[in-house]
Amino acid sequence: MTQPQGLSKGLKIAVIGGGSSYTPEIVEGFIRKYESLPIRELWLVDIEEGKHKLDIVGALAQRMVDRSGLPIEVHLTTDRRRAIEGADFVSTQMRVGLLEARKWDEHIPNQHGVIGQETTGPGGMMKALRTIPVLLDICRDIEELSPKAWLLNFTNPAGMVTEAILRHSKVRSIGLCNAPIGLQKWLTGKYGVPPERLYTEFVGLNHLHWVTRIEADGEDKLPELLDRREEYSGKNVPATEWDADFLRSLGGLPSYYLKYFYMTDAMLAEQLESLKTNGTRAEVVKKVEDELFELYKDPNLQEKPKQLEKRGGAYYSEAAVNLMDSLHNDKRDIQTLNVANGNTLDFLPPDASIEVNCVVTGQGPLPLPVTKVPEQAKGLIHAVKTYERLTIAAAISGDRDLALQAMAHHPLVPSVSVAKTLLGEMLEKNRRYLPAFFK
Amino acid sequence: MTQPQGLSKGLKIAVIGGGSSYTPEIVEGFIRKYESLPIRELWLVDIEEGKHKLDIVGALAQRMVDRSGLPIEVHLTTDRRRAIEGADFVSTQMRVGLLEARKWDEHIPNQHGVIGQETTGPGGMMKALRTIPVLLDICRDIEELSPKAWLLNFTNPAGMVTEAILRHSKVRSIGLCNAPIGLQKWLTGKYGVPPERLYTEFVGLNHLHWVTRIEADGEDKLPELLDRREEYSGKNVPATEWDADFLRSLGGLPSYYLKYFYMTDAMLAEQLESLKTNGTRAEVVKKVEDELFELYKDPNLQEKPKQLEKRGGAYYSEAAVNLMDSLHNDKRDIQTLNVANGNTLDFLPPDASIEVNCVVTGQGPLPLPVTKVPEQAKGLIHAVKTYERLTIAAAISGDRDLALQAMAHHPLVPSVSVAKTLLGEMLEKNRRYLPAFFK
Amino acid sequence: MTQPQGLSKGLKIAVIGGGSSYTPEIVEGFIRKYESLPIRELWLVDIEEGKHKLDIVGALAQRMVDRSGLPIEVHLTTDRRRAIEGADFVSTQMRVGLLEARKWDEHIPNQHGVIGQETTGPGGMMKALRTIPVLLDICRDIEELSPKAWLLNFTNPAGMVTEAILRHSKVRSIGLCNAPIGLQKWLTGKYGVPPERLYTEFVGLNHLHWVTRIEADGEDKLPELLDRREEYSGKNVPATEWDADFLRSLGGLPSYYLKYFYMTDAMLAEQLESLKTNGTRAEVVKKVEDELFELYKDPNLQEKPKQLEKRGGAYYSEAAVNLMDSLHNDKRDIQTLNVANGNTLDFLPPDASIEVNCVVTGQGPLPLPVTKVPEQAKGLIHAVKTYERLTIAAAISGDRDLALQAMAHHPLVPSVSVAKTLLGEMLEKNRRYLPAFFK
Amino acid sequence: MTQPQGLSKGLKIAVIGGGSSYTPEIVEGFIRKYESLPIRELWLVDIEEGKHKLDIVGALAQRMVDRSGLPIEVHLTTDRRRAIEGADFVSTQMRVGLLEARKWDEHIPNQHGVIGQETTGPGGMMKALRTIPVLLDICRDIEELSPKAWLLNFTNPAGMVTEAILRHSKVRSIGLCNAPIGLQKWLTGKYGVPPERLYTEFVGLNHLHWVTRIEADGEDKLPELLDRREEYSGKNVPATEWDADFLRSLGGLPSYYLKYFYMTDAMLAEQLESLKTNGTRAEVVKKVEDELFELYKDPNLQEKPKQLEKRGGAYYSEAAVNLMDSLHNDKRDIQTLNVANGNTLDFLPPDASIEVNCVVTGQGPLPLPVTKVPEQAKGLIHAVKTYERLTIAAAISGDRDLALQAMAHHPLVPSVSVAKTLLGEMLEKNRRYLPAFFK
Repeated sequence: MTQPQGLSKGLKIAVIGGGSSYTPEIVEGFIRKYESLPIRELWLVDIEEGKHKLDIVGALAQRMVDRSGLPIEVHLTTDRRRAIEGADFVSTQMRVGLLEARKWDEHIPNQHGVIGQETTGPGGMMKALRTIPVLLDICRDIEELSPKAWLLNFTNPAGMVTEAILRHSKVRSIGLCNAPIGLQKWLTGKYGVPPERLYTEFVGLNHLHWVTRIEADGEDKLPELLDRREEYSGKNVPATEWDADFLRSLGGLPSYYLKYFYMTDAMLAEQLESLKTNGTRAEVVKKVEDELFELYKDPNLQEKPKQLEKRGGAYYSEAAVNLMDSLHNDKRDIQTLNVANGNTLDFLPPDASIEVNCVVTGQGPLPLPVTKVPEQAKGLIHAVKTYERLTIAAAISGDRDLALQAMAHHPLVPSVSVAKTLLGEMLEKNRRYLPAFFK
Repeated sequence: MTQPQGLSKGLKIAVIGGGSSYTPEIVEGFIRKYESLPIRELWLVDIEEGKHKLDIVGALAQRMVDRSGLPIEVHLTTDRRRAIEGADFVSTQMRVGLLEARKWDEHIPNQHGVIGQETTGPGGMMKALRTIPVLLDICRDIEELSPKAWLLNFTNPAGMVTEAILRHSKVRSIGLCNAPIGLQKWLTGKYGVPPERLYTEFVGLNHLHWVTRIEADGEDKLPELLDRREEYSGKNVPATEWDADFLRSLGGLPSYYLKYFYMTDAMLAEQLESLKTNGTRAEVVKKVEDELFELYKDPNLQEKPKQLEKRGGAYYSEAAVNLMDSLHNDKRDIQTLNVANGNTLDFLPPDASIEVNCVVTGQGPLPLPVTKVPEQAKGLIHAVKTYERLTIAAAISGDRDLALQAMAHHPLVPSVSVAKTLLGEMLEKNRRYLPAFFK
Repeated sequence: MTQPQGLSKGLKIAVIGGGSSYTPEIVEGFIRKYESLPIRELWLVDIEEGKHKLDIVGALAQRMVDRSGLPIEVHLTTDRRRAIEGADFVSTQMRVGLLEARKWDEHIPNQHGVIGQETTGPGGMMKALRTIPVLLDICRDIEELSPKAWLLNFTNPAGMVTEAILRHSKVRSIGLCNAPIGLQKWLTGKYGVPPERLYTEFVGLNHLHWVTRIEADGEDKLPELLDRREEYSGKNVPATEWDADFLRSLGGLPSYYLKYFYMTDAMLAEQLESLKTNGTRAEVVKKVEDELFELYKDPNLQEKPKQLEKRGGAYYSEAAVNLMDSLHNDKRDIQTLNVANGNTLDFLPPDASIEVNCVVTGQGPLPLPVTKVPEQAKGLIHAVKTYERLTIAAAISGDRDLALQAMAHHPLVPSVSVAKTLLGEMLEKNRRYLPAFFK
Repeated sequence: MTQPQGLSKGLKIAVIGGGSSYTPEIVEGFIRKYESLPIRELWLVDIEEGKHKLDIVGALAQRMVDRSGLPIEVHLTTDRRRAIEGADFVSTQMRVGLLEARKWDEHIPNQHGVIGQETTGPGGMMKALRTIPVLLDICRDIEELSPKAWLLNFTNPAGMVTEAILRHSKVRSIGLCNAPIGLQKWLTGKYGVPPERLYTEFVGLNHLHWVTRIEADGEDKLPELLDRREEYSGKNVPATEWDADFLRSLGGLPSYYLKYFYMTDAMLAEQLESLKTNGTRAEVVKKVEDELFELYKDPNLQEKPKQLEKRGGAYYSEAAVNLMDSLHNDKRDIQTLNVANGNTLDFLPPDASIEVNCVVTGQGPLPLPVTKVPEQAKGLIHAVKTYERLTIAAAISGDRDLALQAMAHHPLVPSVSVAKTLLGEMLEKNRRYLPAFFK
């Protein structure tokens, strides 16, 4: 309980990118957890350009709260500083450049025979370049207006964004992803045990982890999970089968994002095929979103519509609300988060962000030691972290040479010359969002 | 839940040194925790020499269980192997050489102007030399007869004994001390908060720790604790006042055992004075013990007598039973334990034992990272750990040169020549318990 | 001077793979250095299959020694143990599977659109699988017959072979490559300074290094070298131009072997083109070798023929003889060698082999700290080292799963499925040389 | 050759504390080494208070140079900035507070039963508090007026002073002590080998090292040196015999300064005895110095007088001149120096100063890895380093709490209360030299 005023008067929460189609998810979460997480003010903030969506989703949020009968005030604003001032928690779920920018993140690499994806590969790099300066700007506001607030960052690429904040601001920040909680939900379903009887150990980075221990009721389930076809995957990554021999000897259950690295050829083929039929994933999502906002407009809708689940990002709200709960109430439970490495992985710098099990105390998360690191994971983790750190340096400086080094050292970019071509085209397409590169 | 048979049939527990006057404490603990820690068989083991005491305290244990009405079988035996076979938990609370040996551990150093104490200084070293070979012998039995058992070691010097086991056997072992739980109890009383609203962070070794964070209900209490006279101390260490300037700038609340290092002159004076009036601490304890056993003999006594609290070792039972509970039920709560360092303190080897907060899972404790290490603590921690590792090496090899190196490098031993004198006299006095040194 | 008998009676040297076309190089080196490296016995050893070549090159070696008038005995043998017994230095320059195996190392990957090269990529992996067991077998002999001998390993892939020996034998071994000395020679020529006025700092692995400091007469030459087109390259790697922007910001002058990673597309195109016109590099080398042996047969030839220089491997002899000289005479000069990492690169295990500047003392090389490690190099170094360690484990165990993990984690192998195909075909083609994989 | 102008025009050297009685030593060294270290300007600087001595010793220096016939200009000045401007090397050999302050450094601890010594113990701490601010002030001048100069620091306590400079200035600095070269000279004499046939490996801190390898002509001499009575000792430390059993199993030949830690009782007794008969060591030295200056005044004296050797500090000049020579000429030879730890000792911070073998290049010294660290040395090294870092922090801040922490954590100070007494008296006595503590 680090904000004692919170106890008496209730908490203030600011959601940056509050006009997102995801917002009803988190509002539902806040309503459910009200008893342990008593929110007094919920501020949904968005930029001028997103005001229209903010109004629609904000009205739905207000109807949801009304129906719950809870004394939560919903505020809609484009004045970020008012929202942040005195907040206990700030959560970010924004998308700089909107889905239009994502389209090019996916499209341009594909045109050059490279994986096009919004977090992994050149697309993720562009997203980082657009997002990091904006997030650091938000951090300047938090440092000034609510220095004790926790910043919960869901904005992708969450690993790089979190590391940029950890290294370049004083804000207390934690990166969150729904992939770990998603796997745990799938496992609790599969083995019929409650989450507290399940133990999973994650090793790696955001969207680049291996699960090296899986125990249900104390029994080791990893061997059978590595031995079977059946698998967990997110909605946004196509299900392609792992090679059985490879999986069995990999030493950990790989994140489905690792398919971009281990099955690059098949994933690329799938992307090119899908591009022909449905356009980029960004375009597919755009359609889903448009439909969602049509639903949200319905003045009779007072709850999160079922269709939101198709959107991906399942459990996103649950992860965020659980984390706030544990921070607020010093619950000391174990959650998988993106935090500073410290001494956890001895081959990465202490200030690198990693995705790892943490005990969440009132003073923040403490990373648990990893008991097993598959030898084979180390090189790839370090190669991606190298690219990530170069990208962060480029995002902050606007230095094109650094950006070229980052792009060329991404394991999915096949050569310096391809890196140079991609970088040229992608920077140009993102010109509007990258003022530092076009001074 | 690593012993699923435990669930259905109840647990088997072996207490080595079961004839100890402490036994009623732990029996009481087992009775109280029965619901979450369902014990079927409790084996109290002792050596032939201690059979008389075992019979007395064992009869009391039986009466206590009888009164509880619980289906726990109490077994008394001098056959250690039968007790260990198939055990889920083995706990050790023995004293090789009994209080007679302790007397000399305290007396001989005093005669040469050196701190005489049973865990710190030359006395602790002798205790380690006597105890480590016996404990490793027990480990050989556990490796053979109950390889999945957890060995909970309370036997002092708990840090060295635990490290010897961790490095020289395959037994899953954890070292336990009542000092951390004692401080926490004192703090919960002082601040009127339940333990789960208190956060304390321990840094250091067994009987050599600094508490670097103390938060009650999220509020930092360390500055006021470092600023005041009022202090927590164990019954077995005389209360001597800390220098206010020194304490304020020390960066952590020191264990009361640190007085032997920081107030050597005053502590030695107190020992010499006390020696004159009461004899050694061993002799004082002997008297208390004799009285306790008189009480235990009373066939109408069916519960732990109040007088046991005078004995010291408060909360010892609670610490042990809590740890078994968390291991058995994968509780994932935070306890302060003696475990392998891993990457926790970056200046000590990974296999050094340290005393640190751990999350206790069903697969064992995971040490939490320390968030603050006072610069000034590092040298002393490393100096004592150096002595400890030399002592362990000496205990295993029976090498007198190593023993001299250990003794001479203990920070409380003022010179090589004093070390040599002490070592000569003390080895000779312990001849019966140190066969390896007298081959 | 670790072999004082060496001083009085002269040294014994065993060259494993003595029938190599390179042998006249090293014989010339021994003759030139005789004064500081007084060799009494030179044993050229080869396998039965290579006896014909051994006889030819051995006769030339004898003629060279005769002309020098030095009291060096030349012994030709297929009895490896006699050659090793009592040796002061053992040097290895063998090729398990001969050029025929190399041809497939280069050809099969090319057929699947992957770089085909004898040390980098899948080809290098196969060479490691063939070579490591043979080298470790030689080490068993050295452990028994000349335990104080230094094993100088030139056998490629020198980094992996050296690491395998360091980790799996007690032999004192050092890995050597002619690339560092080659660059230094080129620089001394370019800047007109003697080697002792040149300072170069190497960071990385064998065939995967960056030169991060280049000073001639105390002046920093790195910026101009990174800014220019002109470059140093080995004969065996095609000269392809670096991208100027990339090179300028890379933070170190890259080994020409790094082109396989940074210009994969261009290098592959060149290989496929060259394959069409000249066949594999193995076939080109075969032709050069045949011509050399024709020359060696000439009974009037008493010196190393000029044509040997076309063969590649320039300065190989100089590097070997310099190293022996420094070891024998405790010269304490700086040489670039493949040795155990120790604490040099803090992100690699202490027992990983790295290529680094060392001070060569009579007790062996001591690696110098690296003063600058380019951030961008770390990921690639770790990725390749990960593959290398998996390969070593596979070579020793003959475990196909480990081999698949190694192949799939090589940065130049684009996916698990390509890895599996390559592995299948290449293991089959090497069946004769990989008994452990075909048990 | 980092100062190419130096080559053509000759070097400029500034000796801070040039009025010291040691100056003729270094002048002699410069004359002898002139060929490889061509000095054009030698600036002897001192403070106003030392002008009288500077004039005397400066005149002798001029006569020595005149006799040599070399074109070296000798400048005497109290204007430090003029001396530093454009210097290639700055050397410091000053004594803040003169021998008067040293007297109290030795006397006050003795009065309280504690070792009184000018570098080890409370005396060394006071010397550090007086000296570090002055040295850092000199560094400010060097940063401004000769940023590429090398600062060679002989000023004791050399380890702490060097670390303070490394951490708190940008000056390129190296700490030097005559103890390592002294031991090497003794060994070359004893074994009749030239220095380049001797290999010694030093592990530890300044005045706190263990020599863990000693090889003469490749032969291991350490066992016999640890087994014998005969020993090397400096003139300033009384020769007291090591315990034979202890020495044999210590794992390294200890510096004679380690007697203060290992034979504290005997050394203290000797100090108290000697105090009675001769006064403090400071007073003895004062007498020797007065005699020396009488000699120096003789206008016919044109060389270093024999009597200077009695002064202690043997080989001081040789060490300094050798180091300048290697830096200037990029000699890459091995010297034992005080430099930043880097990764050398893995239990100390990278920026801690250690005393270790280095290869001296034109860009500075590179520490060589230590091949053996005696287990028993680690604790004492870390304990003393802890005290040293606290002392440096106190010297810079003038914080009395930090000073108390430093004093209380020195292994030779028996308790906090003694620390407090000593600190109070010693700060008071040094009031004039410690403005930061008396603000």
